[in-house]
Amino acid sequence: MSSTDGVSLRALLESGRLVRAVGAHNALGALLVEEAGLDAVWASSFEISAARCLPDAGLLTMTDYLQVAAQMQESCSIPVVADVDTGFGGPMNVAHMVRQYEREGITAVCIEDKVFPKMNSFVATDHTLVATKDFCHKVEVAKSVQRTSRFCVIARTEALIDGREVAEALDRCTRYAEAGADAVLVHSKSTSNEPILRFLAGWGGQVPVVIVPTTYPDWNAVDAHGAGVSMIIYANQSLRAAIRSVRETLRTIRDEGTSVAVEGRIAPISEIFELQRLDRWLAVER
Amino acid sequence: MSSTDGVSLRALLESGRLVRAVGAHNALGALLVEEAGLDAVWASSFEISAARCLPDAGLLTMTDYLQVAAQMQESCSIPVVADVDTGFGGPMNVAHMVRQYEREGITAVCIEDKVFPKMNSFVATDHTLVATKDFCHKVEVAKSVQRTSRFCVIARTEALIDGREVAEALDRCTRYAEAGADAVLVHSKSTSNEPILRFLAGWGGQVPVVIVPTTYPDWNAVDAHGAGVSMIIYANQSLRAAIRSVRETLRTIRDEGTSVAVEGRIAPISEIFELQRLDRWLAVER
Amino acid sequence: MSSTDGVSLRALLESGRLVRAVGAHNALGALLVEEAGLDAVWASSFEISAARCLPDAGLLTMTDYLQVAAQMQESCSIPVVADVDTGFGGPMNVAHMVRQYEREGITAVCIEDKVFPKMNSFVATDHTLVATKDFCHKVEVAKSVQRTSRFCVIARTEALIDGREVAEALDRCTRYAEAGADAVLVHSKSTSNEPILRFLAGWGGQVPVVIVPTTYPDWNAVDAHGAGVSMIIYANQSLRAAIRSVRETLRTIRDEGTSVAVEGRIAPISEIFELQRLDRWLAVER
Amino acid sequence: MSSTDGVSLRALLESGRLVRAVGAHNALGALLVEEAGLDAVWASSFEISAARCLPDAGLLTMTDYLQVAAQMQESCSIPVVADVDTGFGGPMNVAHMVRQYEREGITAVCIEDKVFPKMNSFVATDHTLVATKDFCHKVEVAKSVQRTSRFCVIARTEALIDGREVAEALDRCTRYAEAGADAVLVHSKSTSNEPILRFLAGWGGQVPVVIVPTTYPDWNAVDAHGAGVSMIIYANQSLRAAIRSVRETLRTIRDEGTSVAVEGRIAPISEIFELQRLDRWLAVER
Repeated sequence: MSSTDGVSLRALLESGRLVRAVGAHNALGALLVEEAGLDAVWASSFEISAARCLPDAGLLTMTDYLQVAAQMQESCSIPVVADVDTGFGGPMNVAHMVRQYEREGITAVCIEDKVFPKMNSFVATDHTLVATKDFCHKVEVAKSVQRTSRFCVIARTEALIDGREVAEALDRCTRYAEAGADAVLVHSKSTSNEPILRFLAGWGGQVPVVIVPTTYPDWNAVDAHGAGVSMIIYANQSLRAAIRSVRETLRTIRDEGTSVAVEGRIAPISEIFELQRLDRWLAVER
Repeated sequence: MSSTDGVSLRALLESGRLVRAVGAHNALGALLVEEAGLDAVWASSFEISAARCLPDAGLLTMTDYLQVAAQMQESCSIPVVADVDTGFGGPMNVAHMVRQYEREGITAVCIEDKVFPKMNSFVATDHTLVATKDFCHKVEVAKSVQRTSRFCVIARTEALIDGREVAEALDRCTRYAEAGADAVLVHSKSTSNEPILRFLAGWGGQVPVVIVPTTYPDWNAVDAHGAGVSMIIYANQSLRAAIRSVRETLRTIRDEGTSVAVEGRIAPISEIFELQRLDRWLAVER
Repeated sequence: MSSTDGVSLRALLESGRLVRAVGAHNALGALLVEEAGLDAVWASSFEISAARCLPDAGLLTMTDYLQVAAQMQESCSIPVVADVDTGFGGPMNVAHMVRQYEREGITAVCIEDKVFPKMNSFVATDHTLVATKDFCHKVEVAKSVQRTSRFCVIARTEALIDGREVAEALDRCTRYAEAGADAVLVHSKSTSNEPILRFLAGWGGQVPVVIVPTTYPDWNAVDAHGAGVSMIIYANQSLRAAIRSVRETLRTIRDEGTSVAVEGRIAPISEIFELQRLDRWLAVER
Repeated sequence: MSSTDGVSLRALLESGRLVRAVGAHNALGALLVEEAGLDAVWASSFEISAARCLPDAGLLTMTDYLQVAAQMQESCSIPVVADVDTGFGGPMNVAHMVRQYEREGITAVCIEDKVFPKMNSFVATDHTLVATKDFCHKVEVAKSVQRTSRFCVIARTEALIDGREVAEALDRCTRYAEAGADAVLVHSKSTSNEPILRFLAGWGGQVPVVIVPTTYPDWNAVDAHGAGVSMIIYANQSLRAAIRSVRETLRTIRDEGTSVAVEGRIAPISEIFELQRLDRWLAVER
């Protein structure tokens, strides 16, 4: 039940098999991802800020995001990959961030090349990128302060989100890898996987490639792996599932005047006791 | 969007109409309870500790619970009723708790008469109660330190949970009301509403009565209100709904290799943008 | 013992008499400022970050600074003026900041016109300013989201710190006042009060002027008030006093092999009991 | 700059030489203890609660104390010994506490045998002890959940504080050592070291003995070591030094109308820059 004991993202990526991560917004969600047999948890800024009713726009602080990511890592033994936006400022902020996350047992972070404070990639607004060399400096700083070799930095380019060419995404990712990134994430809001396929066709394979197919969900994981993708992040489905079911449950209780109609559709309390590992805790007491 | 502006639990209870509260474990859950047209949010120790993969046994601290309750109250305008277990220790802890919760905009707390650290009422283990006079002292302390008149203290007896007679529950609640409690909560793990009906038959109506029908969910709210119940708490259905749907979603993604099969069953991203009030935030930026 | 009950900074500034604030880095320090009969507490980013052994460079987050400021305000009845650096990002961050600080009972914040992440003003490095209109927008946003009329926004210009002319400081402060700032702070690292005197000579008195005479400490408060200063912040002397005395105490204990030699030079435990208001707390218990 | 890299308390105790710890209440204070060449930092509940203007009576939560202890350990490379009061409740709380502290890099905690919530040992009030076997169970639980061998549990008896005989203190400590405690702390509020000398005379040396000579400060460390003491904690002198000097500084500023008179008696800003390791941080930026 700890990152230090569990397998690291680095080890997963080096294994050569496809790594599948799913987003979560609290410790329980992370445990459910592990329980389902998936490989890693994505500590999604979008999910975490939405759970606070705030936009994914750099309003929550590093402290807020780190608290949740640490609680996730505490509850599961698969690696938590922390979505750390821009690294929360400049190079000093990145150094501080890496130290803080690593102290809390997080073994992988993903930094993106937008200007702080960033806005969620799916919002139709500005997504200005920092200069490539400035982001390379952030990557270098991140790698230079990590204390254990298992710590892993994913460099994410928002070049396609900002409407730039695949060529720029390739150039940026190449330089991020040269700066020390352990993997690159190329994000896209296209409803087709075509830009990603062009990226993969041009990629030299320096480091593994990560994708987030939110807008092109029909690309099968096996096919994506065959095309050169090393890791797929299903970034926000957990939260979206929870919202839908909680809404339905609340409306039913409101309309029916009892919870009877929902009882068969929701987890029994005994399942929660199991997720809380109640038996083990009671054994301590006795 | 703040407790100070919204209606207080006290005002709701004084209105004479039935108050319905539903449990939540984060700010978004509280907003969904408000959105569904329910009256209040129950900041459930059970839900909040389960969201951290910990048993509901006084392991999370007042700091942990208060943080979540404050975030809930920040996100909605209906009152958040904070489940504060035993008050986190003795009379000084209760005084500290009331000051801290009230500072954070919480206008109602519910204290129970078990010994600290308590265990969740549905776990088959000891549920030792403190002496009646000692709990009355806690209630008196709570009421003596509150700063605004809108603040409300619900005194919860676990007499029936501990296997004691309805007569003792009545005696305790009477004395808690005399000590200043604004309402009493009589908890039961019977699968029938019969013990509660006997309690209500013997209750003199000094202050409103609150119930949590987890184990007797088939008692309709209208009927319960008619029998003398002022407030019903559906304490844990939100979390149980979320667990079920997230589990199903994760298994589908794992098995299908894409999220296509779940996309139609989960909330679209646009709904999350609305819950985040993205438009209002973007208006600030411009 | 709460900002809501106590006098606000706005009321102090409107009184016309000189307001004197002193920096602190924790709740006890704030209480000591009040106990000494001073008017306000400066929740100094420099002191708070130094207490964490970190530079004053935007590494600690809003969460960190707010936590300390709220604890200060909880412990004293004079206003805490929160040093919020650049507002922690762009306009949305400023809006979020004002809401969070006001919720925690803080009635005054001071925002500066540097680019995020800022560096402490006394460090010989870049201190790039944001464009005047962009900072005016931040001030407008801050004022537009405050909920109570007592909340007060001090706009701080770092124009002189950045080596610009007094004329620019005057122009910026004029426009910040027009944008709604309740007071302006003109910072200087000159070892003479001469730049400030020139600023005051050119100032039209739209709103009160605040100074931080760290580098020109010999300017007497009465004289400064006579020259047009409304508020003086002694920003870091508390921390500097604590460091010196703790160092000496530690060295003596190390060298002497007992604490006897320091016992007469340090506060007795009974004084700490008084600062903790132990008697009042014990009264709760009985 | 991390406990993981630094020497552990266990290693210090095993070295056979006297270990001297001094209390602190924040990260900077911990760094000053290390800088002075002392061996360990005592994360004092008394100092930490006083810094929040609260009595040392179990009002601050484990979350509060852990946050400070973790920040201390982050800032220094000597071991932080966390004063964890009663372990914050029962055996489950102790298990949770050990896991949380160890995750944050703390390698030593000190648990005392009073009933939760405890009151500071120097307050003239009840100091009821838990039954010996119940405290032994807590010690066993603490030792059973630690993950690394370097983690160290000090069992502290308040038998003498509660007015009991030295024989009981000896009996309790013997049983605590048998339960797995790595060291025992025998606390006393006598103004003489005589009770401690009697304890040491009766002690079989099973594990090292720790003392806190607050009320008998004239016992020289070398003499105490010769008498069989392995570790001395100067528990509160840092805070008491800070209070005295900050008070004097504030009064001088208030009376003089400038800070000139204090400038020579307090640390210059350049010393703070050094404590912040500003140069190293600026090197990251460039």
